[in-house]
Amino acid sequence: MAEQEKDIKDLGEFGLIHHLTDQLPIHNPSTIKGVGDDCAVLKFDADKEVLVTTDLLLEGIHFDLTYVPLRHLGYKSAMVNISDVYAMGGTPRQITVSLGLSKRFTLADMEEFYDGLRLACDAHNVDIVGGDTTSSLTGLMISITCIGDVERGKAIYRSGAKPTDLICVSGNLGAAYLGLQLFEREKEVFYSQQAEAKGQPIDFQPDFSGREYLLERQLKPEARGDIVRQLRQLGIQPTAMMDISDGLSSELLHICEDSHCGCRVYEEHIPLDYQTAAQAEEFNLNVITCALNGGEDYELLFTVPLADKEKVETMDDVKMIGYITDADDGKLLITRDGAQFDIKAQGWNHLK
Amino acid sequence: MAEQEKDIKDLGEFGLIHHLTDQLPIHNPSTIKGVGDDCAVLKFDADKEVLVTTDLLLEGIHFDLTYVPLRHLGYKSAMVNISDVYAMGGTPRQITVSLGLSKRFTLADMEEFYDGLRLACDAHNVDIVGGDTTSSLTGLMISITCIGDVERGKAIYRSGAKPTDLICVSGNLGAAYLGLQLFEREKEVFYSQQAEAKGQPIDFQPDFSGREYLLERQLKPEARGDIVRQLRQLGIQPTAMMDISDGLSSELLHICEDSHCGCRVYEEHIPLDYQTAAQAEEFNLNVITCALNGGEDYELLFTVPLADKEKVETMDDVKMIGYITDADDGKLLITRDGAQFDIKAQGWNHLK
Repeated sequence: MAEQEKDIKDLGEFGLIHHLTDQLPIHNPSTIKGVGDDCAVLKFDADKEVLVTTDLLLEGIHFDLTYVPLRHLGYKSAMVNISDVYAMGGTPRQITVSLGLSKRFTLADMEEFYDGLRLACDAHNVDIVGGDTTSSLTGLMISITCIGDVERGKAIYRSGAKPTDLICVSGNLGAAYLGLQLFEREKEVFYSQQAEAKGQPIDFQPDFSGREYLLERQLKPEARGDIVRQLRQLGIQPTAMMDISDGLSSELLHICEDSHCGCRVYEEHIPLDYQTAAQAEEFNLNVITCALNGGEDYELLFTVPLADKEKVETMDDVKMIGYITDADDGKLLITRDGAQFDIKAQGWNHLK
Repeated sequence: MAEQEKDIKDLGEFGLIHHLTDQLPIHNPSTIKGVGDDCAVLKFDADKEVLVTTDLLLEGIHFDLTYVPLRHLGYKSAMVNISDVYAMGGTPRQITVSLGLSKRFTLADMEEFYDGLRLACDAHNVDIVGGDTTSSLTGLMISITCIGDVERGKAIYRSGAKPTDLICVSGNLGAAYLGLQLFEREKEVFYSQQAEAKGQPIDFQPDFSGREYLLERQLKPEARGDIVRQLRQLGIQPTAMMDISDGLSSELLHICEDSHCGCRVYEEHIPLDYQTAAQAEEFNLNVITCALNGGEDYELLFTVPLADKEKVETMDDVKMIGYITDADDGKLLITRDGAQFDIKAQGWNHLK
């Protein structure tokens, strides 16, 4: 109990960092020195390239603590960075974490956050090697850097896709976006009931029954290291790869632009979960629009040479959704009835 | 002119990143791929260890845009991270930069910031390999990660100091703190004149004459790569090293704690610039307190075996300020008149 009553102010900056990062497990031989000096010290084998990715997550922009528990936020913050290392075909090894905290956050809050962070890191054998905290004037800011490695020459860029390559995607799309819409709807309901109650206590219970999968996809995304391992085991070297953070459309356009090519993607092959389809209908949204532009799915989008088609067919949880074309052929979505639409990055207006 | 009129909103997130990071120079063969994919891709020689450090800088906490130009802020943001790599005895190689921007920042502002960032990076042969921007609800947030390398086994930790080791410090201390106090004073003067003017325009000119060095130390700190190079050339391997970001007292206590030892530091040997001493007197502050607790000097504090004394004496801009003792002997400052005081981390009350 004494521990719980301790607060951030009593610990001070160095005490807080020590409290949160003391006795962190070390999973990787590449971690020589973690938290506690001017730098972390790492060591990579001569046959490896080092991957570095970083993300800044801000309260009110990237997350809403009204419905995101800090434990889930910690988990997701680590996961979205880990996902970027997988998106290069690499293996995540270390992360550093910087937090800006306003006065409303307690030590217990930060322990919750770190619990989630550690859960994600342990699941992917990632070491927390840097943990900085500072005060902020308002809100919570999270900056995470993830470091990984990949065999020399094997990093998978966005720029290697070639005409006739197959376009593949893992898992299913649009669920995280609909999970977010569900949270936003229940938040509105809560606020309107609260306003009606005029200061009287209200007994609000959000209604998420049958939609648990969508919430989980929003709160607890899973980086697809399993897909990267399958690719390695099958000897498939994708020609291009990205993780789907901004939405399938946006990522497809990045690959096409960087690879100087076009694409044809078939609506009927875009993988959707049943709950995603049902929830889109309830919200009167086009489910394909959600899948194309929703974002935050953290699935992998990759292209492979046509010669690898049979190997890809043996993969778990991977769908072929189309193929790469010459740049002149455009970037097209083919609907079920054979109509063609240009793929646009934000808001696919034709189907809205 | 058309370029200047363009704004962040027109460019969008990806356009802004592209605009700011297009055609960045690459100084290091270890940089294989910089900005533009899910991760940066780096390659280090087998005889190197990799160093990683990260800092989160927040408006209103770490900097005040009332008197810090964005160009200087960019410069300093890079420099404080570069300094952490030198503090391990390493060579900085790459940085990644994440920015959170509220609506009040224009494209021209961000160009200013990046100009400063590039100036610092070019001065130390550092490549900008990641540049992320996001909107923020209020203010400017800067998260920088710096990556460097050091020969295997040669990283200098805080934990290696031994009794009889000499304590050395580069440059001089306290100037950055007094520069900050000067800015704060002139800001107060400006606000009070503005209040008196009751909405009429005022002709305010801050008075910094003869104190330019202090302002430069605050606005444009220089990471001491030159000291690290001197140490290498002389074959000196410090037993412990840190950069002085929080103040000499705080860093000395870190080295003593991590090395399980004590120290004796002599007031008369603490290096001070003439302007620092004069300004402290004007502010009625004890200059030694400023040097011990001021912070932001980004000088190097290091310990070397007694056997290296003659070599250290040949170094440019390095002073020996005391020596390491057994832990039982305490952590002491010896004043000019021979009195002993315990070194405390924040606010050295005896001399205040």
